[in-house]
Amino acid sequence: MPPPEVPASHQDLLDRPLFAHLATVRPDGSPQSSVMWFAWDGTQALFSHTRSRQKYRNLVHEPRCSFHVQDPDNPYRTLEVRGRVESMIPDVDAAFYRSLQERYGLVVPVFDADVRVVITVTPTSFVAVNGGLTEKETGDLTRLLSQITANDSDGSRETES
Amino acid sequence: MPPPEVPASHQDLLDRPLFAHLATVRPDGSPQSSVMWFAWDGTQALFSHTRSRQKYRNLVHEPRCSFHVQDPDNPYRTLEVRGRVESMIPDVDAAFYRSLQERYGLVVPVFDADVRVVITVTPTSFVAVNGGLTEKETGDLTRLLSQITANDSDGSRETES
Repeated sequence: MPPPEVPASHQDLLDRPLFAHLATVRPDGSPQSSVMWFAWDGTQALFSHTRSRQKYRNLVHEPRCSFHVQDPDNPYRTLEVRGRVESMIPDVDAAFYRSLQERYGLVVPVFDADVRVVITVTPTSFVAVNGGLTEKETGDLTRLLSQITANDSDGSRETES
Repeated sequence: MPPPEVPASHQDLLDRPLFAHLATVRPDGSPQSSVMWFAWDGTQALFSHTRSRQKYRNLVHEPRCSFHVQDPDNPYRTLEVRGRVESMIPDVDAAFYRSLQERYGLVVPVFDADVRVVITVTPTSFVAVNGGLTEKETGDLTRLLSQITANDSDGSRETES
């Protein structure tokens, strides 16, 4: 199966230094929700994390994850990315983490370079949301409204006849 | 066990009409991440949803969930709420959904009142984040910095001696 394509209408949400709201599954099966920096390399999402924290253990246990990015200028415009961890490798000298600090304009000393890892997530699907609705939901609502309009028209004709 | 208390420093994030970034677990075990409106009644979080959508099926299958709220004025200040679905009951006349529309200042016609439900989530724990770090992480970092400072002082004395 070819890799899914980023919806062009929502590409900017991956390119801008916005926040990823990441859902992972803990070893006990319950979900965890976290705010993360990320980078998008054109086909994959890259996260920085440490080997000593819970999310790392979650992703070792369950590599499937999901994150969404919300447009701060229009909070009803979001992109959900579902995917799978492709690799978690040491971030030598925290080079990737430092590049994220630059991307987000928050450069501070790094004290945990020895445990930093780069998490690479390969998308399996994208869900673009506009006006709080997915494309499917917008279609369903449009059909529903057409039916209501059609029924109203029928009603008018009956009244007129 | 007494119910956990909302960290006073982050109470406002539940009171303000901000967005909940909700993590649920799909029946296949993979996580899902969604943007949601919510209300906070003092002890529980209330969400509006429909019986026809995926998140409903997720929560029927796995009632444990987690959401976080991010301060739009300081994105490194967030509150994660872990909890469990207490009930999912019909939202008669979409009364609760309409109250959420008022809370978020987006009042539009409701076409799906017949399938609307109120989802009540009881918190099992809160994780307050400041400056991108949890309280535990801030403590760990403070201890690390103290050690580094102590080692530097030792070094200075050695040089001087």
